[in-house]
Amino acid sequence: MIYMDHSATTPVREEVFEIMKPYFTRSFGNASTFYSLGREAKEAMENARENVASIIGANKDEIIFTSGGTESDNITIQGIAYKLNEMGKGNHIITSSIEHPAVMETCAVLEKKGFEVTYLPVYEEGIVKIEDLKNAIKEETILITIMHANNEIGTLQPVNEIGKIAKENKIKFHTDAVQSVGKIPVDVNEMNVDLLSISSHKIYGPKGIGALYIKKGTRLQPILFGGGQEKDLSPGTENIVGIVGLGEACRLAKEELEKNISYVTNLRDKLIDGVLNSVEKSYINGDKNKRLPGNVNFRFTGIEGESIVLMLDAKGITSSTGSACSSTKLTASHVLKAIGLENVDSHGSLRLTIGPENTEEEVKTVIKEIPPIIEKLRSLSSIWNKDESIWENNTKSCDI
Amino acid sequence: MIYMDHSATTPVREEVFEIMKPYFTRSFGNASTFYSLGREAKEAMENARENVASIIGANKDEIIFTSGGTESDNITIQGIAYKLNEMGKGNHIITSSIEHPAVMETCAVLEKKGFEVTYLPVYEEGIVKIEDLKNAIKEETILITIMHANNEIGTLQPVNEIGKIAKENKIKFHTDAVQSVGKIPVDVNEMNVDLLSISSHKIYGPKGIGALYIKKGTRLQPILFGGGQEKDLSPGTENIVGIVGLGEACRLAKEELEKNISYVTNLRDKLIDGVLNSVEKSYINGDKNKRLPGNVNFRFTGIEGESIVLMLDAKGITSSTGSACSSTKLTASHVLKAIGLENVDSHGSLRLTIGPENTEEEVKTVIKEIPPIIEKLRSLSSIWNKDESIWENNTKSCDI
Ligand SMILES: Cc1ncc(COP(=O)(O)O)c(C=O)c1O
Ligand SMILES: Cc1ncc(COP(=O)(O)O)c(C=O)c1O
Repeated sequence: MIYMDHSATTPVREEVFEIMKPYFTRSFGNASTFYSLGREAKEAMENARENVASIIGANKDEIIFTSGGTESDNITIQGIAYKLNEMGKGNHIITSSIEHPAVMETCAVLEKKGFEVTYLPVYEEGIVKIEDLKNAIKEETILITIMHANNEIGTLQPVNEIGKIAKENKIKFHTDAVQSVGKIPVDVNEMNVDLLSISSHKIYGPKGIGALYIKKGTRLQPILFGGGQEKDLSPGTENIVGIVGLGEACRLAKEELEKNISYVTNLRDKLIDGVLNSVEKSYINGDKNKRLPGNVNFRFTGIEGESIVLMLDAKGITSSTGSACSSTKLTASHVLKAIGLENVDSHGSLRLTIGPENTEEEVKTVIKEIPPIIEKLRSLSSIWNKDESIWENNTKSCDI
Repeated sequence: MIYMDHSATTPVREEVFEIMKPYFTRSFGNASTFYSLGREAKEAMENARENVASIIGANKDEIIFTSGGTESDNITIQGIAYKLNEMGKGNHIITSSIEHPAVMETCAVLEKKGFEVTYLPVYEEGIVKIEDLKNAIKEETILITIMHANNEIGTLQPVNEIGKIAKENKIKFHTDAVQSVGKIPVDVNEMNVDLLSISSHKIYGPKGIGALYIKKGTRLQPILFGGGQEKDLSPGTENIVGIVGLGEACRLAKEELEKNISYVTNLRDKLIDGVLNSVEKSYINGDKNKRLPGNVNFRFTGIEGESIVLMLDAKGITSSTGSACSSTKLTASHVLKAIGLENVDSHGSLRLTIGPENTEEEVKTVIKEIPPIIEKLRSLSSIWNKDESIWENNTKSCDI
């Protein structure tokens, strides 16, 4: 199997699994108890917190553990919006048009509750323009939430500049760094960020655990209530196994960051060149350079991304597509639409996201397997007009 | 080590851990993807859902997975309250005065938002009276949320009667069954319950995962937003490892239910008799019979529960206390207050919660270790008046 869907999820690394093991059956205490077994759990948790803080240049007491990136995003956006609005600070939020649903849907709900949300455009490159951000800011702006790296096309947003502007205007800045932490350098101080979301399962940690950086002094209105764990913001018995796993995943990712960046970038560029050179009418979605080291997002005119994914799957290659019908929701990707692709174009997208355990050999195999698949699918495609090499608009659309 | 704090948390059972293992590093796919690795994860998830449904007599499609009991309680109480209030159905909620903070705190927040909450008394036995419930119901009542088994004193509420009354009055009924599922029979149909919360780590499954039963047709307003997982109610990448663990924990608990009930009840009664017979001024908190098979909650006049727990811990026995200073929050247990104990009395409580892996030998050891500890602590206690055998009110109180 060649796994190239690292932006969807990653396996738990062997080393991470080993560290987690004792906490299942032996050191299984409830971290909120004060006897020895509980203190043992608490200690492991605080050690993990240190490792999470360290990978983003934060202090340990600025990190809370959550059940994942989605909860981190929700705690932040709802928490800041309700709190600052209640304090009479305003009701305007600025975000981008390519955020993950955890941000996008939360903003949509806030709109229904009377908040105003500006969705900044990202243009063909998939990157917001600082000028647009400046123009969007107004008296009532209370929060800027713009992701660090996009999960579909991998493009990187100018978070340092955004943070500077947010700070100058005394506006809270949150970044969803679920796809960037552990893959590129992330420093909360350089970013001037107030809140930053992390998810464990994107960086070889277990699923169901994440973290949220909350800059000292930032006040949030809680959205979940219970036993007071994690500063009253993410209550519930602490998931020690998950926390320990996330901590170790961060520690390893930090240690290997430079090495992995150059290794993965090299594979990515080989993959891009190899495929673009051997398939006609193939393109890269999003900026070619300002993107995650491991993200490749192709566009092949005339075919359905879903079919490519399934045919690659049959060859043992795991990939994904942001095209229509790709996920359980039958709508075309809002990200591909945001970079200007018509529905018909967005159909033929293929995302390959590379991790440090992928090999040059695997990349070669993928480069070899893709062209015949594209050719086959195009030959079967009633809408692939060989003469014109254009994909005519067709009635079959999943964007319903 | 003798672990007798099963109501706080349990270890992951060896069998459960074994079943979970392949999903860390091999079948690690994202269950929302449609290629083979994703379908594999999805299949494991649906199999687990079946096992969770089965232990409470529900249908598979009435179960959603959450990050734990706390999230399940929040999704329910906030979700029903906001939804039904929006629909103009009313703003009154009935609960008990001994709920877990996940229910209690959520209700408190709703009160601040204009909802009215009635907290039913539980009297010395720790059990609500049906008459009180009937009297509390009014036109505006939209939700009754009363726990099945209490986490501190283990008392069982008359959920079947409550459900019947709720149904007759067309009021939604939720029960927090975190402490009862897997320990006593739980059947959503007999209970006439609309929503029921489950947590994995109380029944030998992993931490950070739970479930919520939602009777077909029950509508909730979501409180977390994202990629639409779990019927849009608990979004975020599915925690397959946790889900598989919870499923197996339920399957095993169901299989062994009858056997465990009689085994654990026998140990419990031996423990109660052994200690009450050998320590003067010792009592049981809560109804002696209508309680969980594994729950023992002693009250020893004149000493601090915290000290007993620490001294037992030094002997390798893990217990807990609902007394002041027992948890990270420095307040006396609201449960002990609700059964009529003055602060001064509630101090000397000791909870021992037994699981099926405890042995008769262990119970004997605990019965032997407790009396000298109590004696020692009383002899050191400036407030233990030997003549009167009463604990005089003292200024040192953690209830701040
Ligand atoms: C950019 C981004 N944000 C948030 C999330 C949600 O994280 P989680 O799956 O841990 O809830 C994801 C991944 O699913 C993501 O890619
Ligand atoms: C009765 C009860 N409800 C809810 C919870 C919360 O469950 P969790 O720790 O899974 O969030 C607990 C345990 O902590 C409990 O005992």
